[in-house]
Amino acid sequence: MKRRVYLDYSSTTPVDERVVAAMLPFLTNKFGNASSVHSFGQEARAAVDRARAQVADVINARPNDIVFLSGGTEANNLAVRGVCEMNEARGRHIITSAIEHSAVREVCDAMERHAWTVTRLPVYNNGIVRLEDVRAALRPDTVLITVMLANNEIGTLQPIEEIGAFVRETRAGGHRHLWLHTDAVQAVGRMNIDVENLGCDLLSMSGHKLYAPKGVGGLYVRRGVRLARQNIGGHQERERRGGTESVAGIVAFGAAAELARTELDARITHLLLLRNRFEAEVVRLIPDVIFNGDRKHRLPHLSNISFDGIEGDGLLINLDLNGIAVSTGSACASGSIEPSHVLRALGLTDQLARAAIRFSLGKDTTDEDVDYVLEVLPRAVKSLRDMSPTYQKRLSHAVI
Amino acid sequence: MKRRVYLDYSSTTPVDERVVAAMLPFLTNKFGNASSVHSFGQEARAAVDRARAQVADVINARPNDIVFLSGGTEANNLAVRGVCEMNEARGRHIITSAIEHSAVREVCDAMERHAWTVTRLPVYNNGIVRLEDVRAALRPDTVLITVMLANNEIGTLQPIEEIGAFVRETRAGGHRHLWLHTDAVQAVGRMNIDVENLGCDLLSMSGHKLYAPKGVGGLYVRRGVRLARQNIGGHQERERRGGTESVAGIVAFGAAAELARTELDARITHLLLLRNRFEAEVVRLIPDVIFNGDRKHRLPHLSNISFDGIEGDGLLINLDLNGIAVSTGSACASGSIEPSHVLRALGLTDQLARAAIRFSLGKDTTDEDVDYVLEVLPRAVKSLRDMSPTYQKRLSHAVI
Repeated sequence: MKRRVYLDYSSTTPVDERVVAAMLPFLTNKFGNASSVHSFGQEARAAVDRARAQVADVINARPNDIVFLSGGTEANNLAVRGVCEMNEARGRHIITSAIEHSAVREVCDAMERHAWTVTRLPVYNNGIVRLEDVRAALRPDTVLITVMLANNEIGTLQPIEEIGAFVRETRAGGHRHLWLHTDAVQAVGRMNIDVENLGCDLLSMSGHKLYAPKGVGGLYVRRGVRLARQNIGGHQERERRGGTESVAGIVAFGAAAELARTELDARITHLLLLRNRFEAEVVRLIPDVIFNGDRKHRLPHLSNISFDGIEGDGLLINLDLNGIAVSTGSACASGSIEPSHVLRALGLTDQLARAAIRFSLGKDTTDEDVDYVLEVLPRAVKSLRDMSPTYQKRLSHAVI
Repeated sequence: MKRRVYLDYSSTTPVDERVVAAMLPFLTNKFGNASSVHSFGQEARAAVDRARAQVADVINARPNDIVFLSGGTEANNLAVRGVCEMNEARGRHIITSAIEHSAVREVCDAMERHAWTVTRLPVYNNGIVRLEDVRAALRPDTVLITVMLANNEIGTLQPIEEIGAFVRETRAGGHRHLWLHTDAVQAVGRMNIDVENLGCDLLSMSGHKLYAPKGVGGLYVRRGVRLARQNIGGHQERERRGGTESVAGIVAFGAAAELARTELDARITHLLLLRNRFEAEVVRLIPDVIFNGDRKHRLPHLSNISFDGIEGDGLLINLDLNGIAVSTGSACASGSIEPSHVLRALGLTDQLARAAIRFSLGKDTTDEDVDYVLEVLPRAVKSLRDMSPTYQKRLSHAVI
């Protein structure tokens, strides 16, 4: 059988077998509706409550501040629209970054069509927003600042702690209708997160990025922050999200969150070792590579590399034929023919943006996986470059 | 161990073991993101496509007309808000019934706060809307008719086929901005459904009512019907619903839909036999019971009975102590102290509405389960009535 190496953990992760074991009973014998009064319901309710505490723990929140949802996209939708719709009488201005995930970006775009104004902060060539830009963008009618904690394509960490301090200070100064949301979908389980330190009011999470199933996520909502409901019908989630609780999914999310918390340090160490070795070897083995995004302030598992002269899509397919799974951007952007908005925000040319590949490692990635990729990748890049007229031309110029 | 009998299949169902077997690989080794380009993604994509065909088959729809969502509540939200927001320039009037599930009812209520007008059709004492009332309610600015296919508390079937024919006729007459949505969450898997016969434009489904897990559902959207997106971000579901596809949940929904289709006749026969025997025995064993809703035009698995003189909540708890799970209304209404809006729409007094219990059977309900309930229930009702001053008083009057 052909070797298969999955280096696309930023797109999604397999469910940890311990998480599968935790959720299975809630599909079969403990199948009650958590909103039912009887013992089957109580059993489900207790499991949901436990999961809520587990998810809260991973970001140092209170259990009641966690709203369970269908995923990170719904979390981002509820956060942005929920705050904006609730506060439109107070102002109609949003500050965001130029590199948000589409679930924030497209919601902000939609708000613009509803008479909101959106300021998109630049990220310069390192892929990081600057506090001074946030400060300069603030207007009396600013209601929401939404900046991701870690970018999904290049992994760069944003200065949420500094922005959080600025928001608290601004509120203390009398601008009380200002909230800070951060999309932490990529960050949870890959870095230490403490909502008190961050000073955010809302924080989005997704189960399937941390070894829980797809279809479950959560939004941290600081006590006292009121949101306009989006999914309406029923009293679930303390009136913040209607619909029967996805009990098995929630239990899985809780179990995965607990594992992420207890194993965090070990996972980070493991990822950094593999990722840094991978990058060092790529530099050694392949000429003309560009690492995209700040190499210091970023998640430990991700490497975004432009291979000058090639098309990322072509390389992706070549690697896939060799059993290696990577991506060119976010999976959510698949089907788009536009070069990545994130890479363009870094100032990359369209050509270099199209030449990019995202390698994202996971807790189950092995040294042998990396060895295999390091064996295949240089050959693949070389064969594509050999067929690339632009690269050949540039090479010949360089020689002359 | 105490016997446990679950008669709350309208609240939720256990996942069929064959469905668990179908979904498990998509949690573990086939864990790809269906939007990823590589082979892991393709594998997931193929599974989602297969499930889409399976779900389409159960309602005689085309696969492309199925949008996968996080559940029935999201389906109802997307249908109602999606049609209304897309067409608000054409009119701002909705026709609905007085007995919709909260996921339709509360969304209609919310539309009223956005300058929409809502006509709520009566259901008379049989719990069924009348076509003549739909006809009378139609206005030039009517955009949406949303009436459920089968009620969740009393199981009554609504005349969607007649309403569908009326809608087609109305559209043919020039009122083109009119769409018909039906909430079929309770009906799928419990009756034969054909969207062509029904003539509806949108139809809501929920996985966990038909032995798939909670957290997955679908909306049938007839080709050509345009909806304003609700969950935004990403190109998934042909731009109709952003967010990573819940692959394992969707596969489970598909597998459950296929089982529901192939086993439908057998399930209905089984349910009718058990339910009808249960009701006949209840009448024989317990005086002063009222069956709520039309007893002919209703789902085969459900029985809603008011036990005069008692509080449904008290009976529910008594039965629960004996291991029997039933409900007083929908699980989604739990936590509410209001008597059921459905039972009040039938014209029941608050007292009789509060005296109601919903028994809902499932494919795994056995004769022994029913026997056990028939053993416990009469005693439970009697003991509660013995403590009920109003019931005792009425009894003594009757004797005099």
